[in-house]
Amino acid sequence: MKIKLINPNTTQAMTDSILDAASRCKLPDTEVYAVSPKCGPDSIECFVDEYLAVPGVLKEIIDGDRKEGADAYVIACFGDPGLKAAREITHKPVIGIAEAAILTSGLLAPSFSILSVLDRSVRITEELVYSYGAERRCRSVRATGLSVLEFDRDPAAGMAALRREAEKAVREDGAECILLGCAGFVDFVAELREALGVPVLDGVVPAVKMAEALVGAGLTTSKVNTFKKPETKEIKGFTMFEEEDLKF
Amino acid sequence: MKIKLINPNTTQAMTDSILDAASRCKLPDTEVYAVSPKCGPDSIECFVDEYLAVPGVLKEIIDGDRKEGADAYVIACFGDPGLKAAREITHKPVIGIAEAAILTSGLLAPSFSILSVLDRSVRITEELVYSYGAERRCRSVRATGLSVLEFDRDPAAGMAALRREAEKAVREDGAECILLGCAGFVDFVAELREALGVPVLDGVVPAVKMAEALVGAGLTTSKVNTFKKPETKEIKGFTMFEEEDLKF
Amino acid sequence: MKIKLINPNTTQAMTDSILDAASRCKLPDTEVYAVSPKCGPDSIECFVDEYLAVPGVLKEIIDGDRKEGADAYVIACFGDPGLKAAREITHKPVIGIAEAAILTSGLLAPSFSILSVLDRSVRITEELVYSYGAERRCRSVRATGLSVLEFDRDPAAGMAALRREAEKAVREDGAECILLGCAGFVDFVAELREALGVPVLDGVVPAVKMAEALVGAGLTTSKVNTFKKPETKEIKGFTMFEEEDLKF
Amino acid sequence: MKIKLINPNTTQAMTDSILDAASRCKLPDTEVYAVSPKCGPDSIECFVDEYLAVPGVLKEIIDGDRKEGADAYVIACFGDPGLKAAREITHKPVIGIAEAAILTSGLLAPSFSILSVLDRSVRITEELVYSYGAERRCRSVRATGLSVLEFDRDPAAGMAALRREAEKAVREDGAECILLGCAGFVDFVAELREALGVPVLDGVVPAVKMAEALVGAGLTTSKVNTFKKPETKEIKGFTMFEEEDLKF
Amino acid sequence: MKIKLINPNTTQAMTDSILDAASRCKLPDTEVYAVSPKCGPDSIECFVDEYLAVPGVLKEIIDGDRKEGADAYVIACFGDPGLKAAREITHKPVIGIAEAAILTSGLLAPSFSILSVLDRSVRITEELVYSYGAERRCRSVRATGLSVLEFDRDPAAGMAALRREAEKAVREDGAECILLGCAGFVDFVAELREALGVPVLDGVVPAVKMAEALVGAGLTTSKVNTFKKPETKEIKGFTMFEEEDLKF
Amino acid sequence: MKIKLINPNTTQAMTDSILDAASRCKLPDTEVYAVSPKCGPDSIECFVDEYLAVPGVLKEIIDGDRKEGADAYVIACFGDPGLKAAREITHKPVIGIAEAAILTSGLLAPSFSILSVLDRSVRITEELVYSYGAERRCRSVRATGLSVLEFDRDPAAGMAALRREAEKAVREDGAECILLGCAGFVDFVAELREALGVPVLDGVVPAVKMAEALVGAGLTTSKVNTFKKPETKEIKGFTMFEEEDLKF
Repeated sequence: MKIKLINPNTTQAMTDSILDAASRCKLPDTEVYAVSPKCGPDSIECFVDEYLAVPGVLKEIIDGDRKEGADAYVIACFGDPGLKAAREITHKPVIGIAEAAILTSGLLAPSFSILSVLDRSVRITEELVYSYGAERRCRSVRATGLSVLEFDRDPAAGMAALRREAEKAVREDGAECILLGCAGFVDFVAELREALGVPVLDGVVPAVKMAEALVGAGLTTSKVNTFKKPETKEIKGFTMFEEEDLKF
Repeated sequence: MKIKLINPNTTQAMTDSILDAASRCKLPDTEVYAVSPKCGPDSIECFVDEYLAVPGVLKEIIDGDRKEGADAYVIACFGDPGLKAAREITHKPVIGIAEAAILTSGLLAPSFSILSVLDRSVRITEELVYSYGAERRCRSVRATGLSVLEFDRDPAAGMAALRREAEKAVREDGAECILLGCAGFVDFVAELREALGVPVLDGVVPAVKMAEALVGAGLTTSKVNTFKKPETKEIKGFTMFEEEDLKF
Repeated sequence: MKIKLINPNTTQAMTDSILDAASRCKLPDTEVYAVSPKCGPDSIECFVDEYLAVPGVLKEIIDGDRKEGADAYVIACFGDPGLKAAREITHKPVIGIAEAAILTSGLLAPSFSILSVLDRSVRITEELVYSYGAERRCRSVRATGLSVLEFDRDPAAGMAALRREAEKAVREDGAECILLGCAGFVDFVAELREALGVPVLDGVVPAVKMAEALVGAGLTTSKVNTFKKPETKEIKGFTMFEEEDLKF
Repeated sequence: MKIKLINPNTTQAMTDSILDAASRCKLPDTEVYAVSPKCGPDSIECFVDEYLAVPGVLKEIIDGDRKEGADAYVIACFGDPGLKAAREITHKPVIGIAEAAILTSGLLAPSFSILSVLDRSVRITEELVYSYGAERRCRSVRATGLSVLEFDRDPAAGMAALRREAEKAVREDGAECILLGCAGFVDFVAELREALGVPVLDGVVPAVKMAEALVGAGLTTSKVNTFKKPETKEIKGFTMFEEEDLKF
Repeated sequence: MKIKLINPNTTQAMTDSILDAASRCKLPDTEVYAVSPKCGPDSIECFVDEYLAVPGVLKEIIDGDRKEGADAYVIACFGDPGLKAAREITHKPVIGIAEAAILTSGLLAPSFSILSVLDRSVRITEELVYSYGAERRCRSVRATGLSVLEFDRDPAAGMAALRREAEKAVREDGAECILLGCAGFVDFVAELREALGVPVLDGVVPAVKMAEALVGAGLTTSKVNTFKKPETKEIKGFTMFEEEDLKF
Repeated sequence: MKIKLINPNTTQAMTDSILDAASRCKLPDTEVYAVSPKCGPDSIECFVDEYLAVPGVLKEIIDGDRKEGADAYVIACFGDPGLKAAREITHKPVIGIAEAAILTSGLLAPSFSILSVLDRSVRITEELVYSYGAERRCRSVRATGLSVLEFDRDPAAGMAALRREAEKAVREDGAECILLGCAGFVDFVAELREALGVPVLDGVVPAVKMAEALVGAGLTTSKVNTFKKPETKEIKGFTMFEEEDLKF
């Protein structure tokens, strides 16, 4: 089975670290590979970033289906950008890492908190929690106040900020599981898990395991109505797509 | 005051009809103008269409702010594509026609139903209703089963389908107000209103009037956190933007 | 267009300040006038006050419709007392200031907090928020602990209390917009807006602008079921109504 | 113990039938008496009716407390008009019949439907269900389409209409308990119960039994905040109150 | 009328104190008696305890119906263990003390908080509140951190812990009524009520009064569907049941 | 990895068919085995059945942990009986088949319906859907009206009933995915999937795949609070447990 990991931003270092995490957790027979879109922002921190990441994500799904023989897709950004559109394009399973982390936490604990990057992500993340029906299990969404770039520049400071907010989530908010709300946090999982004594989930590992589970069970996306293939129509102005790409 | 109406699809006939509706309801001193983005799909009927419409919408907001002196924006597609991203880009009011119609209906009636185009839009529209907190007022979302194109080709058949579903919404579902879930339906309002005896709202008129209201009251989008300007970053591959466009 | 502002309490000073705010924000062609009912309490701070204010409000609606040619009504008390009954009596738009403020905030910010007068209003206000479907956007309802009368006697202390609670709402509760939960607070808007850096909404201005919008769009209340005219029946003991008043 | 039953409308026949039902279910030591307010409408079928009934209800509470030594109150109209205001005025238990029926049904069955009078009551009743947190247990609110007066004139037709809708509620909507949404329906309980094979609750009997329960347990309304006594203030124009009535 | 109180744990001292509270609040003509099951845990503090208590509770219901002529049952543990199963077995009213306390609080106050034993009960109790539709009235669930046994060993320390958390619930969380989330807390009611100035409800007294109310009104559990008698089937391995016990 | 499948009822034929389904979908390296408890009912169709099944389920978890070296558990009854208690007893993953099916459906389709056995299961199943936060995705719960035994005796009639209700769920209720609400339905999956053209999920396969996913990712149940080990206490009267079994 071949799982394509799509890092929706264009930062190769993050793509590498996502692939690394996937490689460590995958089944022996699973093949994983990771890409960044050729177009889009170098990090995703607001609605504009999300929307400008999606066309590149969709291009990667199209190529995965038509050229690469992928069996499932993981969208590896905690906002799950373009997830529903991706499910229209392909019948193969597409998993968002936020969705995977939120669902998985329900199998392990009665409640969770999410650690996010900037303050501006708190509201977006709360709406995501709502859209997955997890609002009654969510104790809090906490921001570290550091940007993706700052995490990159000073991982020790990032780790300290994550740990500080995670401890508040567990002690003050009553969270019994911690979700890391950024694909870039995947390297902090082990240390936080040890420090906190509760399950700590990045989204990449749960998403890879869920993708393997769906493919293994022979399950595919429902094509009866909402996620049917898009009607073919004239779409202008996107140079990142080839001529046939948007004919479904 | 200058209101820019953005038809997120590239079909000029629909842009014209949106401008026409706006022109008839606007205040004498209001200037309205309507555009279609240069890029994007010629109609919006699924998630893929929405996502591919948004970059063009954002470009029109940027131009409206920097080149045209617009005072407010209306996004004239019933899915409100890109609305929250638009609010990040500009501090000037941005109104989606679904949001405007749903809010306005609450001032006129205790409940409403929405008439939509294809079956596949029903679920998307229900989620939209939810995101505006109107789920307890929404009696039903009903699809006509006709595509945007079919409405165009045979308006009489479209009118008949709308009227049939609207009557079911009022009689069977208990709706006391009808919302037309497509900007292209603006020309059917008067006839439906007469036939049904309940308020019938397209979104364009409510959105123009709300834009006038906000500008008239001197109100602008909150910039304190979620809708702050996007962080400037490298964004690759969108030829529809000029070099300075995405520097905020 | 003629908009009648009804201050549901009998304190003329508050009626004057409501009219003043309306006069400043109205369109040039709009005529606004403000009244206090002849019967009812001199301030509204609990359920008993609300119920004893409503008959006087209804009398003003009846007179507005039958004697004064009003085109729309604003009920200018943050509890929206009698709003649904008023919509039964007239087909012309009736806007409550709480409803107007809550709806308007959704066009400007992802979340809000409400500043109220006494502690006892917190629960009432929370239920109001719920009834308008805004509970997921509401971060908090905070009381200043001062009565309407105390605000009157010492506006500087009132301003200080409002500012203190507003700052907590923004910083601790994450509100991105502030709603002033008393028609008497209309004079504090400008100063708070400057101090806080977020939109601050009294209800009077949003209500006047929404009334203008509805009248301008030719929209009237749905009369198909819930808000039909009351059945005419014998109603005894209300000397504030003239003989024909309650025949609909 | 002395329970005062307040029929919020001025129709003596309904007051008699309420008293009759209460007399049959009360404990031997309980004294029940029933009144109609001196002011207000002769039936309650819309928001205007409710609001014009409340001052008379409050007057009866005041007299009950100060002149009659009542130990508890039942507001015997299925809209529970003025319930929260009544709880401000007195610390003695006040029970609304809708509240009593809805709560009691939860002890007997997992779900219920409500049978109402006119179509226009459906929405009001749904909001009532919501305000008591029973929306997940409520299968439907069904109207008979007959007015209170028509029930009075032709009880056999009324019974037939109630039975028809009740059977639909049980068979089509899955209700496992039926609530009668009008105090005037109290005489139909026994026959419907036999016909349907499910519990059928009017509100009067549950309310009387709950009032007995609260008084028997020595429980009184919380006066710490929301239901504190109203602030004494000038209230003009209600000739139904005596001078001291509104001083709390 | 004969009410059987079932203490689902096997600690006789708690059974005695439950009987004592019931004896003090019951009507003169009511006969109350209390039992502990012969099997099950000696206190109930987690899901395992609840499940192992239920067979014994069901045995007591069966005996109450077939051998003792009970007219109603109270399950006297704040988790209401086995309540719905008990309603299948008998048509006579079965009341859980959590359900009784939560419903009763709605007749007395707009909001409540629950005081619980161990931290691990908080989440279970929150789900209980949800299942009774009271989540909008519930301000908080607070744990004392002491086990049932510790309350037994040092009641003064228990009282101090309850008082401390109750005061926080009232002052910080805005609760206007306090519910005691353990049948063992019944002896603390009077002192807490005096100290706090708000209604304090154990569940035993409300449950006894509701049982009296239902029996007095001739009401029984709906047997039309969900709570029908169990299908008779082979059930192996429960030595606490006699041969005929599980034939319904 | 070793997954223990627990069929909570004592019917060996159903245990065999569960094992069969698990064997077909498992990974090559996974070992699966299936058991029925030694005590409990031979089918589970109501609350009493569920409660009497749980002690046997817990015994199997205890034995799995202490004697058999199981790595994860699947509780293979669509009511997920005893799931939370099982999570207290062991830190190894425990998956209920309802939970697994409901979560998995969210990765494949925007909505689902559940097909159940008897009418009396509809309400129980709706509450289960609610407890997993899936109420906004659930279109309907439909009962076939046939008992577990009747499905056994006449599988062709069972298949016809399932297909009839499934088609209504898809066509009338708008379900885009079908969940089979009984572990005994596992043999009907393939035929229904072909007939309906939408994903059809029994719970056994999703649960096995999720168990493999969690074990593969090294994830275990959160032990910080709600799911901590039970306090050891005296538990009387369960002959199915050995002396040390309930010491945690």
